[in-house]
Amino acid sequence: MSTIKKIAVLTSGGDAPGMNAAIRAVVRTAIYNNVEVYGVQRGYDGLVSGSIVEMNAKSVANIIQRGGTILKTVRSSEFKTKEGRVKAYENIQKLGIDGLIVIGGDGTFTGASVFGKEFDFPIIGLPGTIDNDLSGTDYTIGYDTAINTVMDAVDKIRDTAESHDRVFVVEVMGRDSGLIALRSGISIGAEAVLIPEIEVDYDAIMKRLDQTRKNKSSRIIMVAEGDKDGGLVVAEKIKAKFPHYDVRVSILGHIQRGGKPSCMDRVLASRLGVSAVEGLIEGRRGEMVGVRGGDVAYSPFEKSIKHIDKINTHLTKIVDILSQ
Amino acid sequence: MSTIKKIAVLTSGGDAPGMNAAIRAVVRTAIYNNVEVYGVQRGYDGLVSGSIVEMNAKSVANIIQRGGTILKTVRSSEFKTKEGRVKAYENIQKLGIDGLIVIGGDGTFTGASVFGKEFDFPIIGLPGTIDNDLSGTDYTIGYDTAINTVMDAVDKIRDTAESHDRVFVVEVMGRDSGLIALRSGISIGAEAVLIPEIEVDYDAIMKRLDQTRKNKSSRIIMVAEGDKDGGLVVAEKIKAKFPHYDVRVSILGHIQRGGKPSCMDRVLASRLGVSAVEGLIEGRRGEMVGVRGGDVAYSPFEKSIKHIDKINTHLTKIVDILSQ
Amino acid sequence: MSTIKKIAVLTSGGDAPGMNAAIRAVVRTAIYNNVEVYGVQRGYDGLVSGSIVEMNAKSVANIIQRGGTILKTVRSSEFKTKEGRVKAYENIQKLGIDGLIVIGGDGTFTGASVFGKEFDFPIIGLPGTIDNDLSGTDYTIGYDTAINTVMDAVDKIRDTAESHDRVFVVEVMGRDSGLIALRSGISIGAEAVLIPEIEVDYDAIMKRLDQTRKNKSSRIIMVAEGDKDGGLVVAEKIKAKFPHYDVRVSILGHIQRGGKPSCMDRVLASRLGVSAVEGLIEGRRGEMVGVRGGDVAYSPFEKSIKHIDKINTHLTKIVDILSQ
Amino acid sequence: MSTIKKIAVLTSGGDAPGMNAAIRAVVRTAIYNNVEVYGVQRGYDGLVSGSIVEMNAKSVANIIQRGGTILKTVRSSEFKTKEGRVKAYENIQKLGIDGLIVIGGDGTFTGASVFGKEFDFPIIGLPGTIDNDLSGTDYTIGYDTAINTVMDAVDKIRDTAESHDRVFVVEVMGRDSGLIALRSGISIGAEAVLIPEIEVDYDAIMKRLDQTRKNKSSRIIMVAEGDKDGGLVVAEKIKAKFPHYDVRVSILGHIQRGGKPSCMDRVLASRLGVSAVEGLIEGRRGEMVGVRGGDVAYSPFEKSIKHIDKINTHLTKIVDILSQ
Repeated sequence: MSTIKKIAVLTSGGDAPGMNAAIRAVVRTAIYNNVEVYGVQRGYDGLVSGSIVEMNAKSVANIIQRGGTILKTVRSSEFKTKEGRVKAYENIQKLGIDGLIVIGGDGTFTGASVFGKEFDFPIIGLPGTIDNDLSGTDYTIGYDTAINTVMDAVDKIRDTAESHDRVFVVEVMGRDSGLIALRSGISIGAEAVLIPEIEVDYDAIMKRLDQTRKNKSSRIIMVAEGDKDGGLVVAEKIKAKFPHYDVRVSILGHIQRGGKPSCMDRVLASRLGVSAVEGLIEGRRGEMVGVRGGDVAYSPFEKSIKHIDKINTHLTKIVDILSQ
Repeated sequence: MSTIKKIAVLTSGGDAPGMNAAIRAVVRTAIYNNVEVYGVQRGYDGLVSGSIVEMNAKSVANIIQRGGTILKTVRSSEFKTKEGRVKAYENIQKLGIDGLIVIGGDGTFTGASVFGKEFDFPIIGLPGTIDNDLSGTDYTIGYDTAINTVMDAVDKIRDTAESHDRVFVVEVMGRDSGLIALRSGISIGAEAVLIPEIEVDYDAIMKRLDQTRKNKSSRIIMVAEGDKDGGLVVAEKIKAKFPHYDVRVSILGHIQRGGKPSCMDRVLASRLGVSAVEGLIEGRRGEMVGVRGGDVAYSPFEKSIKHIDKINTHLTKIVDILSQ
Repeated sequence: MSTIKKIAVLTSGGDAPGMNAAIRAVVRTAIYNNVEVYGVQRGYDGLVSGSIVEMNAKSVANIIQRGGTILKTVRSSEFKTKEGRVKAYENIQKLGIDGLIVIGGDGTFTGASVFGKEFDFPIIGLPGTIDNDLSGTDYTIGYDTAINTVMDAVDKIRDTAESHDRVFVVEVMGRDSGLIALRSGISIGAEAVLIPEIEVDYDAIMKRLDQTRKNKSSRIIMVAEGDKDGGLVVAEKIKAKFPHYDVRVSILGHIQRGGKPSCMDRVLASRLGVSAVEGLIEGRRGEMVGVRGGDVAYSPFEKSIKHIDKINTHLTKIVDILSQ
Repeated sequence: MSTIKKIAVLTSGGDAPGMNAAIRAVVRTAIYNNVEVYGVQRGYDGLVSGSIVEMNAKSVANIIQRGGTILKTVRSSEFKTKEGRVKAYENIQKLGIDGLIVIGGDGTFTGASVFGKEFDFPIIGLPGTIDNDLSGTDYTIGYDTAINTVMDAVDKIRDTAESHDRVFVVEVMGRDSGLIALRSGISIGAEAVLIPEIEVDYDAIMKRLDQTRKNKSSRIIMVAEGDKDGGLVVAEKIKAKFPHYDVRVSILGHIQRGGKPSCMDRVLASRLGVSAVEGLIEGRRGEMVGVRGGDVAYSPFEKSIKHIDKINTHLTKIVDILSQ
């Protein structure tokens, strides 16, 4: 029989659409299993400062459709110190909490891993980040919404590109990963997608721009934030090669993190929230819960954190074929 | 070396968002491989009547974001007769077409299977239907858009449900399959999801409605079209049990088929369109191309047509847990 | 100097997008003017039962973008009785409330008018209804959102109509008024718009359907709920005249009331909420505040309630011209 | 009787959502009145180069919902020279065109005014610009869509602002006018709106930011492009005053021009397109057609071009009141 009687949930790192759906699933699954549940405000900072409040089914009513996180989130510095973590543990002890669920990305799981070992404390992680750059899961919560947001924005930009026969260079989020750029790039019919994982072949891009001029009135180059050049430089290079082109740059920025979560993100968040609580009850700890090949799968924090190249080469090839 | 030099593409059955993205991918992949490509108007009817026009890269410019199908679609009756299929074959022969790509659902592949065997003709199918009720692929083109459309509609209905403390019974598409109801139901936090694949436990539903009254100001029951009762009867049953409830019915109807495709549907359609042409060139025939576990996979028409229960029991359980 | 020190706000009748923006504006304008402000739950029912809670700036944080009404709404029966209104007045007296703001439609203002005279109590009304069927204002709060919702839904339906060469008959809200049907009909390029205010000329409609067959692959007839035939009968008539047409009906239903308010509705609700409180402070009573020709304008409840024909004949003519 | 037998239509300047709806209305109204109609490609450039094609009802089928302009648009330099205009006139003469309709903004009407006088040629203008900065009309085609696009983007940004307790400075389009910033600012509940028409009172803004800290977890400052400081500098000033605030900047950029037009923009474009053709037929020339107080109104190009301050002081006051 499970010894888990009281758990807490927090969100940490950058916010991602679907975090609220995950919080809701955690809270309701806990209640379903007669486990008390607390919400920690502002990520690990709230653990350290003791901003921890009891939650019930009503606390999470009507939030499944909302972007952001009702628990708020920060990138905590105090939790990175031993003193901070000791305070956090004391707060947890005081309330009798015997399990923790953390929703976030790479940094969140690093913190959870350290804390879990230090105090021998059961923690399960949920992948909540728009970047989709975690091993151990095919998709992270927030990724599907983010690529749809990018797609909708570029659909709008294309109207102008079409009307003015322009080339647009669009820079999207992804400091270390081109996954947002790659899928959204395919979805909007990009001429080329520049991502940090693959070396850029400017000759090929220029050749293609030249060739497609007749067939296409709008041409869009997607650039991941982590590209070594970045959107502005890419635009300059195109301009240098084709001075007669009307080239514009658009850096999409913060709209990519927000918005109401897509259906896929809500379902994913609900599944993982349920499985996180069930995992804790079954005695799991130090693991992230994700989906692989359609099924729920757990993997140790160490494996989730380690960045594995998730770029699907079938997708990069598709960009080349379809930009004809 | 491939003998495929000239192919045709058509859409058949009910339209689905992403069909245009699939057509675009087929046309551009053909051109990329120096294969000529024709578009057949109005599904199999166009094959029979000879409404077949040459396509080029420009024919499919600026369509990736559009719902419906530029090739139009009908449910053909003439193609179901031997005479019709003979005419179709003659038209194909006349133009020198040596391969066919059909985008549609169950009925589409049945026709393709018969025709392919009858005339020993190479055909590859793409799963294009909002119902997601085909074996051989985890997702069909159009499904993700449809569940997002349902979700958006119910998010709107919930505003009214919340404001008036109402119970809403929402009926969604899916004559034989509850897959639309199930995922969209989770995404909007349904109290219960009634689908043809699972026997309905009205006692449990009534009990839950009674229990959740305090925690929830809006309560929504999702009903698949294929449910043996249907939305109106379900509402009457609730009303009979709880006469003081304000119960309303909404049958979402035709909006579920249209709209601009989601990012996932555009990427899926692009991948499958590319792989369909590549499959033909590699000598494949009589197969549907889908995705399984994230990878492209081919399966014989017979296996794709045969309806296999795709209901994920993890998802049905989630509905119960999260409706607390 | 104003004698208004404490006011209450409520929403009544059917919910409409922008009601929350109006509540927010009322609350913040009261605070800005050092007036205490209370929120009444569930419309006039809450007045009768005493469900009245104090509100502050934080009560209305983060609601401007939400559909429905956080104060909830019912169509009250008790307030229609003298006993009910006496109870309501006693509750108001008990809290020392000296002014009331009601957000709703025709029925809401009728109640306000009776109550205001009966107890000589200052009340200002805000037009909150998707129907736009009130005199004294060019637009009601919720109308712009509703016509955009209808338009988005029909844009989706058109994808299917185009793909299948269908005629769609779409029935939209408006029991007494064709204003939703008329504007949304123009926005989606309807062949004809059938509204209660204008006698239907079926001969002209049939002639047009016949003529436009060649130029248009999708044809849509908009029908207001208040049309004497209704969508189903209209479809039957078309089918009887043109048996070879593929005619479908879509009744949009409850999605039309919800959704996040449009920019125009939020701005309108904000302006009217500010002006309602300012009006009360200036000593106004028994009036509805609206916009006319771009400016805020007050009119007595009697004049607002009286239904005046607001159908712009320029718009009905446009439907005829543009359906060529 | 009218002497107008053949007209041409063009779009010029920056593209705006609703231009296609306007083109559609012009073409269909011409046909309705038995007037032949031509489309000029790429604005005045197309007049000069003779890129002029005949249009019919089918040319404008299925475009009412599309952003951008199917006729394309450029900012022409050749038309600014006498030689260019002579060529344009010769092309018009060659085709027997006896009336011209131009859709665009300030620069478009300046060109039309010069050309119309120079060759004594009948021209009617339609206000097509997202900036709403033209006299003679309450609203320009594209404005309503643009403010809704800004609102939707900031609704997304607010999710992140809420989750991280951040202050966001959002810069929106409007080089000479704060109209986009003002209305969209009210719609998203901005703390302050900085526009070129009104001197910025930084002391008041800082004071408000300080005061609202407790009531609001997200605070957003809207800045029009034409503000003398601009978004980046505004953010620096806030940061300098409140170093402990987490302040971010978002420059929305090109997404503001595109997207499918709102209902209001489609109806406006339809009305003005009809009235433009009717005006030409009635013998009008050298005028822009707009709406004032809900009715169609014509005004001479000179009056439309002259920038009159359209800032509604009721709206600026509302920002102050509601940011409590």
